[in-house]
Amino acid sequence: MTLPPAIPPWPLDHIVAELRAARSDWRSRDQRAGESGGRELPSREALRCILRELSGALFPMRLGPADLRQDSEDYYVGHTLDSALKALVQQAKLELQHVQRQLGESPAASAVETLALQTVQAFAATLPGLRRLLDTDTLAAFTGDPAARSVDEVLLCYPGLTALIHHRIAHSLYRLGLPLLGRIVAEAAHSETGIDIHPGAQIGAGFFIDHGTGVVIGETAVIGERVRLYQNVTLGAKSFPTDDDGSLKKGLARHPIVEDEVVIYAGATVLGRVTIGRGSVIGGNVWLTNSVPPGSVITQASLQSNC
Amino acid sequence: MTLPPAIPPWPLDHIVAELRAARSDWRSRDQRAGESGGRELPSREALRCILRELSGALFPMRLGPADLRQDSEDYYVGHTLDSALKALVQQAKLELQHVQRQLGESPAASAVETLALQTVQAFAATLPGLRRLLDTDTLAAFTGDPAARSVDEVLLCYPGLTALIHHRIAHSLYRLGLPLLGRIVAEAAHSETGIDIHPGAQIGAGFFIDHGTGVVIGETAVIGERVRLYQNVTLGAKSFPTDDDGSLKKGLARHPIVEDEVVIYAGATVLGRVTIGRGSVIGGNVWLTNSVPPGSVITQASLQSNC
Amino acid sequence: MTLPPAIPPWPLDHIVAELRAARSDWRSRDQRAGESGGRELPSREALRCILRELSGALFPMRLGPADLRQDSEDYYVGHTLDSALKALVQQAKLELQHVQRQLGESPAASAVETLALQTVQAFAATLPGLRRLLDTDTLAAFTGDPAARSVDEVLLCYPGLTALIHHRIAHSLYRLGLPLLGRIVAEAAHSETGIDIHPGAQIGAGFFIDHGTGVVIGETAVIGERVRLYQNVTLGAKSFPTDDDGSLKKGLARHPIVEDEVVIYAGATVLGRVTIGRGSVIGGNVWLTNSVPPGSVITQASLQSNC
Amino acid sequence: MTLPPAIPPWPLDHIVAELRAARSDWRSRDQRAGESGGRELPSREALRCILRELSGALFPMRLGPADLRQDSEDYYVGHTLDSALKALVQQAKLELQHVQRQLGESPAASAVETLALQTVQAFAATLPGLRRLLDTDTLAAFTGDPAARSVDEVLLCYPGLTALIHHRIAHSLYRLGLPLLGRIVAEAAHSETGIDIHPGAQIGAGFFIDHGTGVVIGETAVIGERVRLYQNVTLGAKSFPTDDDGSLKKGLARHPIVEDEVVIYAGATVLGRVTIGRGSVIGGNVWLTNSVPPGSVITQASLQSNC
Amino acid sequence: MTLPPAIPPWPLDHIVAELRAARSDWRSRDQRAGESGGRELPSREALRCILRELSGALFPMRLGPADLRQDSEDYYVGHTLDSALKALVQQAKLELQHVQRQLGESPAASAVETLALQTVQAFAATLPGLRRLLDTDTLAAFTGDPAARSVDEVLLCYPGLTALIHHRIAHSLYRLGLPLLGRIVAEAAHSETGIDIHPGAQIGAGFFIDHGTGVVIGETAVIGERVRLYQNVTLGAKSFPTDDDGSLKKGLARHPIVEDEVVIYAGATVLGRVTIGRGSVIGGNVWLTNSVPPGSVITQASLQSNC
Amino acid sequence: MTLPPAIPPWPLDHIVAELRAARSDWRSRDQRAGESGGRELPSREALRCILRELSGALFPMRLGPADLRQDSEDYYVGHTLDSALKALVQQAKLELQHVQRQLGESPAASAVETLALQTVQAFAATLPGLRRLLDTDTLAAFTGDPAARSVDEVLLCYPGLTALIHHRIAHSLYRLGLPLLGRIVAEAAHSETGIDIHPGAQIGAGFFIDHGTGVVIGETAVIGERVRLYQNVTLGAKSFPTDDDGSLKKGLARHPIVEDEVVIYAGATVLGRVTIGRGSVIGGNVWLTNSVPPGSVITQASLQSNC
Repeated sequence: MTLPPAIPPWPLDHIVAELRAARSDWRSRDQRAGESGGRELPSREALRCILRELSGALFPMRLGPADLRQDSEDYYVGHTLDSALKALVQQAKLELQHVQRQLGESPAASAVETLALQTVQAFAATLPGLRRLLDTDTLAAFTGDPAARSVDEVLLCYPGLTALIHHRIAHSLYRLGLPLLGRIVAEAAHSETGIDIHPGAQIGAGFFIDHGTGVVIGETAVIGERVRLYQNVTLGAKSFPTDDDGSLKKGLARHPIVEDEVVIYAGATVLGRVTIGRGSVIGGNVWLTNSVPPGSVITQASLQSNC
Repeated sequence: MTLPPAIPPWPLDHIVAELRAARSDWRSRDQRAGESGGRELPSREALRCILRELSGALFPMRLGPADLRQDSEDYYVGHTLDSALKALVQQAKLELQHVQRQLGESPAASAVETLALQTVQAFAATLPGLRRLLDTDTLAAFTGDPAARSVDEVLLCYPGLTALIHHRIAHSLYRLGLPLLGRIVAEAAHSETGIDIHPGAQIGAGFFIDHGTGVVIGETAVIGERVRLYQNVTLGAKSFPTDDDGSLKKGLARHPIVEDEVVIYAGATVLGRVTIGRGSVIGGNVWLTNSVPPGSVITQASLQSNC
Repeated sequence: MTLPPAIPPWPLDHIVAELRAARSDWRSRDQRAGESGGRELPSREALRCILRELSGALFPMRLGPADLRQDSEDYYVGHTLDSALKALVQQAKLELQHVQRQLGESPAASAVETLALQTVQAFAATLPGLRRLLDTDTLAAFTGDPAARSVDEVLLCYPGLTALIHHRIAHSLYRLGLPLLGRIVAEAAHSETGIDIHPGAQIGAGFFIDHGTGVVIGETAVIGERVRLYQNVTLGAKSFPTDDDGSLKKGLARHPIVEDEVVIYAGATVLGRVTIGRGSVIGGNVWLTNSVPPGSVITQASLQSNC
Repeated sequence: MTLPPAIPPWPLDHIVAELRAARSDWRSRDQRAGESGGRELPSREALRCILRELSGALFPMRLGPADLRQDSEDYYVGHTLDSALKALVQQAKLELQHVQRQLGESPAASAVETLALQTVQAFAATLPGLRRLLDTDTLAAFTGDPAARSVDEVLLCYPGLTALIHHRIAHSLYRLGLPLLGRIVAEAAHSETGIDIHPGAQIGAGFFIDHGTGVVIGETAVIGERVRLYQNVTLGAKSFPTDDDGSLKKGLARHPIVEDEVVIYAGATVLGRVTIGRGSVIGGNVWLTNSVPPGSVITQASLQSNC
Repeated sequence: MTLPPAIPPWPLDHIVAELRAARSDWRSRDQRAGESGGRELPSREALRCILRELSGALFPMRLGPADLRQDSEDYYVGHTLDSALKALVQQAKLELQHVQRQLGESPAASAVETLALQTVQAFAATLPGLRRLLDTDTLAAFTGDPAARSVDEVLLCYPGLTALIHHRIAHSLYRLGLPLLGRIVAEAAHSETGIDIHPGAQIGAGFFIDHGTGVVIGETAVIGERVRLYQNVTLGAKSFPTDDDGSLKKGLARHPIVEDEVVIYAGATVLGRVTIGRGSVIGGNVWLTNSVPPGSVITQASLQSNC
Repeated sequence: MTLPPAIPPWPLDHIVAELRAARSDWRSRDQRAGESGGRELPSREALRCILRELSGALFPMRLGPADLRQDSEDYYVGHTLDSALKALVQQAKLELQHVQRQLGESPAASAVETLALQTVQAFAATLPGLRRLLDTDTLAAFTGDPAARSVDEVLLCYPGLTALIHHRIAHSLYRLGLPLLGRIVAEAAHSETGIDIHPGAQIGAGFFIDHGTGVVIGETAVIGERVRLYQNVTLGAKSFPTDDDGSLKKGLARHPIVEDEVVIYAGATVLGRVTIGRGSVIGGNVWLTNSVPPGSVITQASLQSNC
């Protein structure tokens, strides 16, 4: 008996061919910015794994394994850190190769490897300082929120702290020449917390974001020490109405400067390269596109009374 | 020696019985809309898995496995696509059976199976076009954001693109008669990106959402080509104050029409079946419940100057 | 032949020592609130696992395994519940020990164990009632949203329901003396849905949150029955401008009371211990810091007409 | 700049084509016994999973989850059993379909489904008896081995028990018309323990195999009660030298009958349809191809003294 | 419409009840040796995991993670060892509790915990010596097998080494009062390699087993230094024909003593408390039940020439 | 309050130091054959994964995913093969580097990479022929065992086939200069089936091993076509008693030649470079150290009658 061939449920060859044609059109149409054969990009999964290890190495007793003791702490830290840094070298190499291909260059593989290694060495050297900075953020959250019961709870539960651990790592990568890795780290925090901080933003010690969903902080924002933000605050570029030509040049300082000890309440929007003077308080839902002197108290009411 | 029986830590039988009683009350009280015995619903986990495979098949070099090459691309695409489509047939069958049970019908299992297969065949045929549409979205993000360094980075990092890959798949499922699957896909994107697009929304080529957290786009919204949106923009139904009878009929066109090349800035709210004319710019936090002609520039100030 | 020792890629000993120094400084500087040796905190991963099991035990046919039947339902419920409760006892013990250490006390391990067990016993007893409450929420979402096709779809897809399953469990834990576990549960929902409900908030039956991203509900908020909320609604504390002394006492009732059948539209902000009277409607983006009587209809326009 | 296409590391298309040709030759050459399009076979992984669940359901306190209590035992047993039986129906269906295709038949899918369900129903009914049989095997191992400290240890550690749990399940499947599933179960035990018992072998209560590696028991072997075997014992077919025609008919009784309370020491080989009389003792490395009366004591020496 | 209740595919309640009855009979029939409520036994999975960690800690460069370096070795060793020892304390506690229950005793939980901890402390102290012993075994395999290309290959590939790593750990546990854990470790090796060494066997330095399948070494065997064994060698108890009363007392020395530098070829069987003198060679398939002086060369031929 | 430091449960630093000392002694004592810093060895886990993929690519319908169809077969084969070969290049590189380090050489990394790639290219080219060979083995098992019901069952269940799939791959790797990878593959089969075939053994078409546990086939054995073997057969080196100088030279032909259509029954041992003539039958437990002419029938009886 000859069995009939199984009937294909869909024209697989045909769909594969059409998808190939779509890819081919894309590649030929936009060769300059397009993708090229055989490339690898950094991996989101790999970076999430690295982040988990770095978090554990930075805060072994609170974000490391549950049954760690102080006498075994260093073994855990050393082993985990080493593992994270080795994995990071791989990801750094992928970003650096990607940049080279974008530029049409093809340096020796060993040169890229050396640069990746040096960059991760420099990154590793920033970790102790980064831990000390995050300690100030933890204390800021603990003292700033009357509901916080312990500093341990803050690290464990507060999305603002989760976002800052990500940001301070992302910013360090960004400054050392790995902006794409920084961006992937930032988006991991964005997805988990709803807080969107560009890895380029400079943020001082003792920073606290409460609730946090919907917060957006732009690439060239500069934030001083002991600043506090609530949910849905935007520190953005004033691209409208004055900046409507559409040819905005990258790299230009275009986001706000927020000086020390400023508080900005939920829903406030601050746009453009303006300066919020030291100790100012910006009320909820305020829309602000100009600088204010130190010690200002700005509310919707105060703004509307001017018109 | 006779060991004493271990003491139960909680009255398990009692709690199980009370939970059974609660289920029983629910089932008898609301028989019409309620659940019935032995049913299966589509699975969120299964759909997340299908989405990952479809993403890889659509963008093999960027969302597929890291070490793919162009000469092995088609094998990966064909194998992955086939796997995703087979899994989708199962999920489609579950939705179609669910609908039948809601209607009190009980058609032959083979009829449901055939319909599920035909629907997935139709879905498969839309994939090449869907990839071409997403290419326009990728280019829109790349050219629209001065910070974007490469089209690869856009696909890898931008939550707006993640949301659009989900939406264009969800919309295809929605149009082919699988709205529940579409909804599950949409909520997967909502959870990951904070962007909430109803699978019914019609969105033209070259769409770009920046930052994105808090964006809500309703079921009957119609969006033209090359439109740009920022975080916290709502394109909703004007159910208040004019629509307060509470008996809103499903299916009625009740969300905005946004014509080509419109830009809507962060926090703006557009409600009801109004039309935003081609090329208009809607400023941040604007609250708009009426149509505006092509080329309009609407800001909070311009609105308040009218009062 | 003697091989050269492999060259270390980074000064691992040095970085480990510096991180140790940073931890040591932190611990000595802030001994009172700081961390102490050998402690364990509750685990986010463990609680996510417990939540998945509790959700299945509460809604076996919709959130349990796909192929459950009514005749095997009780076996699944009993087995899953028992497993979840046992795991919860461990987490409760960790929170209770943590509190003891915060207070500088060191009670017998068995006393903590007994308390943890009793607390989980009490929690287990609340589950049937909790299921009945969630049934009212499911019905509220089904009847309140014309797009909802079935109650099954509501449980499967609506982020508002996901947030409420989490909240009603978190609130039960909070009331029984496990506020840290409650907080971890609440943050799991916050991360997944963008909806941030403090575990202390009291919420009546038939509650419905549509879309939900950006919703914030504070610790002492009291919400009546059949209330409906949209995305980006804040029920917060009025800490600005009247409450600027910075020494806000914990536990004080400081968030709104929302009476039965109130509707609050997207982006509205209600701050302080004010009362929204029964059946009121608060419009989109409204900023409200005073009480309103039953049946009020508040819009931006109505507020501005007063100035 | 146009990037060169990545060079393929191997001629993938060519190798795929050659493998296709090899498959095609195989299929055309041996159509009768060969494979046909679109078939599915039972899965070893699925059966290993089913075996783990059945083992837990049969011995909940010893092979089930570590923290089970007697008051929650039935929930675990019911839930696990139901899950295992449902999975077994799927595998049974695959075997039955496979047999139909071998026979060139194509019955209605529903007929196969019904038969699979009935077979698993019958299998389920044998489980309580099977547990009682295995209890006798456990006691036999405990009393037969002076080194055994507790019956729990026997179940946990003894490869002989592991092999018997598999065999008694495999034999039940074999008798109910699922010999392929039985074979897969038997091979799982063979791989784990080195004990190779054909699922067709009939084995009485209180059977004990010590050490076990290299034991082979053939399809038509019949073993009485309280029999004991050591490593490397073969109960095989006497195919040499008397049975050298090569056309051995399947199903013929061709393996030994071992009566009650026989002991067979390591390395002994018994071949053909011979009978080892009740209470006999067969010494190590003995080679036996004829029947022996009850109470015999056979050693290498006793055999050689005959020549 | 009222849907019919789904028909149960099998009488689940009935089967569960019958299995309960079987358990109940077992428990009442054999109370002395039987199982009692709420007990936990050590876990095979947990021990396999501990073994993997211990293997890595003992041989970090060869059985640890692939990319370890000498400068990060100690961090890995310390972290992995600590993790393995902590897990081992749990398993030790379970064995000690189990023994207490067998004896009908119920000591304070803390006493068991202290004993478990002390035992694991003693075990930890044996690890450096154990590594040095295994180094001699590795060298023995390397020099003894002309096919071995490097000592690394020996550790990676030779089942004999795998069995010895397990045995030396199992023997250490056995001597420290954890025979059940030792047995589980031994059976893990038995299943993986087919080599069955009782944890009580005493084995000197430089031991080598080639091929190994079917090797059995009994509890009271004593093996000197630099001994070599091949597959299917048994060092067993001479329970037949001289020892047929069936009341063999546990603990009696009943297995062979094998002096230094003995070689025993494949299939040889040595039974009883006999002594194989230093430097003897025992040929393949030899059956030996009496002592032989140092320097003996025993073959099948030499044995038969005696009769 | 100052909390006491947690008491370390074991002297971790001390044990780590002692283990370091043991490693240091090992490395200095045996520098020539010993391990050196920073090396990587091939990974057993990686090879098991590669084997699973190669098995699927060779037999897509029987060892590939359950729901494959003929029209999607090539996509699966191409994708899986490519993935397996890429992973194999990595493992080949590790073996080649290892050999270089053993020789004290340090060639350019790129030279090793090129050699690894070329070797895997050559290996890939052998796969279609290897599939055709395995088809003959499958048929041999099917026709040789009256109990076999279908060729599919043979591939799924027979340990002999599992061992041969491994061996034919291992032998191909061995011949191409990757003997360590070959050995790892062989040991994977040994552990799973108890069949120990050295990767160097040459085995003709249509080979069948029944039951298999305890089979050992040496490095220089040469086996003709259509040969059949049973459990516990050894084809070994005659190192005793004639070969007792201990300095056996590697590579010398020292294992049997078995000509076409020979059958060797269970437990037979053939040692040394002897030839078993075409069509001979070797009985169970026979011990043979000299050549026999074609057509011989050798039994224990026939051997003993000679003395």
